[in-house]
Amino acid sequence: MRPSGRQLDQMRSVSIETDVTKHAEGSCLIKMGDTHVLCTASLEERVPPFLRNKGLGWVTAEYGMLPRSTSSRMRREATAGKQGGRTVEIQRLIGRSLRAGVDRQAMGERQITVDCDVIQADGGTRCASITGGWVALRLAVNKLMKAGDIISDPLTDNVAAVSCGIYAGQPVLDLDYPEDSEAGTDGNFVATGSGRLIEVQMSAEGSTYSRDEMNKLMDLADKGLAELVAAQNAAVGA
Amino acid sequence: MRPSGRQLDQMRSVSIETDVTKHAEGSCLIKMGDTHVLCTASLEERVPPFLRNKGLGWVTAEYGMLPRSTSSRMRREATAGKQGGRTVEIQRLIGRSLRAGVDRQAMGERQITVDCDVIQADGGTRCASITGGWVALRLAVNKLMKAGDIISDPLTDNVAAVSCGIYAGQPVLDLDYPEDSEAGTDGNFVATGSGRLIEVQMSAEGSTYSRDEMNKLMDLADKGLAELVAAQNAAVGA
Amino acid sequence: MRPSGRQLDQMRSVSIETDVTKHAEGSCLIKMGDTHVLCTASLEERVPPFLRNKGLGWVTAEYGMLPRSTSSRMRREATAGKQGGRTVEIQRLIGRSLRAGVDRQAMGERQITVDCDVIQADGGTRCASITGGWVALRLAVNKLMKAGDIISDPLTDNVAAVSCGIYAGQPVLDLDYPEDSEAGTDGNFVATGSGRLIEVQMSAEGSTYSRDEMNKLMDLADKGLAELVAAQNAAVGA
Amino acid sequence: MRPSGRQLDQMRSVSIETDVTKHAEGSCLIKMGDTHVLCTASLEERVPPFLRNKGLGWVTAEYGMLPRSTSSRMRREATAGKQGGRTVEIQRLIGRSLRAGVDRQAMGERQITVDCDVIQADGGTRCASITGGWVALRLAVNKLMKAGDIISDPLTDNVAAVSCGIYAGQPVLDLDYPEDSEAGTDGNFVATGSGRLIEVQMSAEGSTYSRDEMNKLMDLADKGLAELVAAQNAAVGA
Amino acid sequence: MRPSGRQLDQMRSVSIETDVTKHAEGSCLIKMGDTHVLCTASLEERVPPFLRNKGLGWVTAEYGMLPRSTSSRMRREATAGKQGGRTVEIQRLIGRSLRAGVDRQAMGERQITVDCDVIQADGGTRCASITGGWVALRLAVNKLMKAGDIISDPLTDNVAAVSCGIYAGQPVLDLDYPEDSEAGTDGNFVATGSGRLIEVQMSAEGSTYSRDEMNKLMDLADKGLAELVAAQNAAVGA
Amino acid sequence: MRPSGRQLDQMRSVSIETDVTKHAEGSCLIKMGDTHVLCTASLEERVPPFLRNKGLGWVTAEYGMLPRSTSSRMRREATAGKQGGRTVEIQRLIGRSLRAGVDRQAMGERQITVDCDVIQADGGTRCASITGGWVALRLAVNKLMKAGDIISDPLTDNVAAVSCGIYAGQPVLDLDYPEDSEAGTDGNFVATGSGRLIEVQMSAEGSTYSRDEMNKLMDLADKGLAELVAAQNAAVGA
Repeated sequence: MRPSGRQLDQMRSVSIETDVTKHAEGSCLIKMGDTHVLCTASLEERVPPFLRNKGLGWVTAEYGMLPRSTSSRMRREATAGKQGGRTVEIQRLIGRSLRAGVDRQAMGERQITVDCDVIQADGGTRCASITGGWVALRLAVNKLMKAGDIISDPLTDNVAAVSCGIYAGQPVLDLDYPEDSEAGTDGNFVATGSGRLIEVQMSAEGSTYSRDEMNKLMDLADKGLAELVAAQNAAVGA
Repeated sequence: MRPSGRQLDQMRSVSIETDVTKHAEGSCLIKMGDTHVLCTASLEERVPPFLRNKGLGWVTAEYGMLPRSTSSRMRREATAGKQGGRTVEIQRLIGRSLRAGVDRQAMGERQITVDCDVIQADGGTRCASITGGWVALRLAVNKLMKAGDIISDPLTDNVAAVSCGIYAGQPVLDLDYPEDSEAGTDGNFVATGSGRLIEVQMSAEGSTYSRDEMNKLMDLADKGLAELVAAQNAAVGA
Repeated sequence: MRPSGRQLDQMRSVSIETDVTKHAEGSCLIKMGDTHVLCTASLEERVPPFLRNKGLGWVTAEYGMLPRSTSSRMRREATAGKQGGRTVEIQRLIGRSLRAGVDRQAMGERQITVDCDVIQADGGTRCASITGGWVALRLAVNKLMKAGDIISDPLTDNVAAVSCGIYAGQPVLDLDYPEDSEAGTDGNFVATGSGRLIEVQMSAEGSTYSRDEMNKLMDLADKGLAELVAAQNAAVGA
Repeated sequence: MRPSGRQLDQMRSVSIETDVTKHAEGSCLIKMGDTHVLCTASLEERVPPFLRNKGLGWVTAEYGMLPRSTSSRMRREATAGKQGGRTVEIQRLIGRSLRAGVDRQAMGERQITVDCDVIQADGGTRCASITGGWVALRLAVNKLMKAGDIISDPLTDNVAAVSCGIYAGQPVLDLDYPEDSEAGTDGNFVATGSGRLIEVQMSAEGSTYSRDEMNKLMDLADKGLAELVAAQNAAVGA
Repeated sequence: MRPSGRQLDQMRSVSIETDVTKHAEGSCLIKMGDTHVLCTASLEERVPPFLRNKGLGWVTAEYGMLPRSTSSRMRREATAGKQGGRTVEIQRLIGRSLRAGVDRQAMGERQITVDCDVIQADGGTRCASITGGWVALRLAVNKLMKAGDIISDPLTDNVAAVSCGIYAGQPVLDLDYPEDSEAGTDGNFVATGSGRLIEVQMSAEGSTYSRDEMNKLMDLADKGLAELVAAQNAAVGA
Repeated sequence: MRPSGRQLDQMRSVSIETDVTKHAEGSCLIKMGDTHVLCTASLEERVPPFLRNKGLGWVTAEYGMLPRSTSSRMRREATAGKQGGRTVEIQRLIGRSLRAGVDRQAMGERQITVDCDVIQADGGTRCASITGGWVALRLAVNKLMKAGDIISDPLTDNVAAVSCGIYAGQPVLDLDYPEDSEAGTDGNFVATGSGRLIEVQMSAEGSTYSRDEMNKLMDLADKGLAELVAAQNAAVGA
């Protein structure tokens, strides 16, 4: 029934290749099927002005899509002169999600910026960005700890994200683009490795959903998130 | 226990004054306690380019805060040269929420823009904007129907929104600013008059929450939303 | 002869409601007939860079119109990405006018920003902004003096403004929008409570006027300004 | 008493050189003492969208200052990313002033843009721009009439401008920069060749003025404007 | 003597992987040592306004660097609100270079946009973009020809680019970043497969060079360009 | 054969008038035939942040065209909200070229900004800007040396620029606009007074050129540059 032939509760194949660029403190290329996102974590030994001299670290994120990551070419945001509303919304979500797994006191007064750049899009780029972004963050923090710059691990748990939605009347896990563009209701679920929730965003566009449907999507998400956390741990050797 | 002395499941007093400006096709001033939002609905007999000649209407929203709606003055976005990320995120939510209650075919090829301008802020401005925005939209549509420009009512149901959160370890309904700024977990719940969900956004900033806590917040939201729908109906004389 | 039925030298009804928002140091809602402007005065204990360490205060103003304050919806300036030329011109006028009534040495090194946001427009918004802006400024300064932060009153006199123009061949006082959009010649007159002039701006668009006509408009303005100053004093309890 | 040694009612020497650039339909370099402004009039056989198919012409103006036209270098507005408030205010004034001397019906559906670029500034650049801008406009219209594109002269009269102010307690004509920067009260006076007023802008910054003082400045302006109109006529061979 | 241990006239290893993204009509990932650029060619069946109805095609290019393609993180241009001067200069060069190898009449009225996004930078990104961009363009054109949309091949020859410079007093071929940041004189050389020149840009920053030195660099470039053209042909199977 | 009737190797008449504005530390109006550029050098006793406390000076340039310097009016860049790509490219070239003739240590920690504003354009504006810009720079440095602020002359040599191109199949020197708009290949050549090269930019648009053709253009450039250096020296009295 699904365009890809997947089971209702079946994820796309997940691959996370680490250390893919020589400059970043942490990096990975995450592939959720045909969705490919390059995630890099960049360390700076300073925090934004509003945080100075508080002894707290900061994790923030930026998101972008290459112009031809999509089926028809999108206008480059640097040319348009600003980031679009969707971009801003997504990068705020990524930053907030990653911070939920960070002990900012243990991190010390430094900032890590996680850049998530979509190389190829086929649905679920914001979830892939969070899942891959955490891997890049983990690797950058590992480097800091190895160097002795941080003593106690500031990452309290994994952070991963998956989407679910109601496609052709059925709750399905990990929407690809053909499903996403048809689904009237879909949600993004961000959670920790131990299953605590960080962010639930369930939206209907031109439709509505019941609490029962919401629960079914959350059950699916639980399954998917467990698989993503396992993939993260395998990637970072945890 | 709550700063305002309210019960855990007690809303702030709600007031919706309609027809508050002479120019708009529909308008109201909604007050949720000390949060005051002016909502206007503006009709145009044309749709955005991507919708032309499809026989479908469009409802969109814009959101703004007056510079001194907050306890310290915020920079005016027109001076800053762009809308901030939070503004963009909120106005996209308002538009998406209102469209969930619209039969765009029945509406015909016209656009209604709902402007939500915060006169005074004390937490929950996006929820007040959705609840008040629907009233303005309802009044503008009533005018179109009265004039015979629309035959069949394009509004399929009320749309209202409320926030809940975990404050001092307890789930509470309708957060005001002192609660909102302390709550590690809070959510915005948008639903129809008949209780179908449109949007659930539950975020933790620097913390996490369990599915059980989420369910408790959703129960509170149900109670609040019913009261808001009643207030909407009283205001529009439905 | 006037669309509103007013006498040639008759002002619209004026109402000034004070302390209309809980956050601002001073505020009022001024209504000149159907023109409604919300004025707030915001205090900051610092001055712009060009004034630092000179012992002088600063008063500045910003102006905005809500998108549906006008008969057809205007584009929101924050969306357009900048303030339009008319907006910039008006807010510079408001700031300059208010400063003419301020002893900046007595004020001390602090800044007061007066925001004038048009809720509903029916002509004469810049004049209403000046007249109402002064009330907000007066209330904010009163608060500073009551708290003992300022000893000697830095406001040397009232500042008020009114428009006049030649409508259907006749000099008339306090133009409303139907008059303003027809008048070939109109002017804005800003003066102190004691009748000293601060700013005179008389423009013809596609027409011209004689010095004699100008004098007649200034006579009308004198009458209107006296009424506005009385309304200001009543509002602030002076 | 004046820094330049001029009499109170003495203008700076005025020179208007015409046809100074080979591309523009009309052009001049106007010098008011050390204030030098290059004015060009550019013709387009189309009008802005809001005027299409109304049979009316349009005259508009733009104003700029070369970065080192001033005693210390100003930031280039193209680099800053926008025109400043002062620039916008001035170019609106120039356009409005020139249009007051134009019969837009006789002009036909075409647009003339008058660019006023300050090569060297020593006070009074906006007045020089209006006076020189009219010369450029006159020359461009002459060319249209000579070519038979316009039959009846659309310029109804000269348009010229001069500044006056109260310097060291005395009303003086045609302020240069040292006077302008000291004067608490100054005004710009725009009028037609026959002495009809187009725009009066009298401002006090941190001071006030009486109606009597205003009248004295207007008397001075009358004298200066007559001289400027004579210089315009000499320049265009009228 | 070279930091990398290469001979003076030795290129970095070149690899060109084709068809690396599923959406673009043509694409490749070009690696010149540690410089990695993703090039995509996007086809549109329309041309920019200035070319409409002339029967000519258009090839244009855009260039970007991922924020962490460099050794310290660069600000994202979409966040900065505009493309920097260097970016604009580079993308104009890429477009101009590629067009030199295109018969725009044979191409027909369609546009191909070549996006060059730097994944990892180690010097020579503009040259890699041109060389890789031509491969993407070639593949997109092949697809058009295969589909019968274009009959006669519009690509008249290969287009490739290489940099040379004077490093530590010696002319060297294909500068990497450590060399580029030290070289006082360096140039970019763009040529066709048959050795005709398209663009020569030789700059000294804080130094100068003789015509003899220039000739030596051009000899080196000839050698490098031949190798790049061979690599292009191998990649596209020509 | 040339539209102007010039010999193939004949420059346009060159005139350099110095000290044309009273405010700038150095200035000239350079005329290359009908191309007129006003060049000013502005001194600041501070350097950009990236250079602070290094004991080195900085020379930078900005370039602009008056809206009606061209045969049809161009949009003012300040109105467009940004400098176009061509402008940015040109001003980077001017700055880089001038710096090649500067001993930044001898200059001391100060900045000179050279503004090149095109009053009238007829081809070759960037070359005229470099040649005239150097004269303005020379005059500003002379003033610093005369005042004893700089002891040892920081200008190591003249810097001048000329364009050449292949017009109607023939290499010609100093292209004017009618030639420039027809030439498929043209170049800009920047060199010192002693004939050392600073920048060579030879571009083909929709065509290619041989190394032999390039050499012929460089021979022409040598002749032209010698004449320009002589004109510079005459202008500054060297």
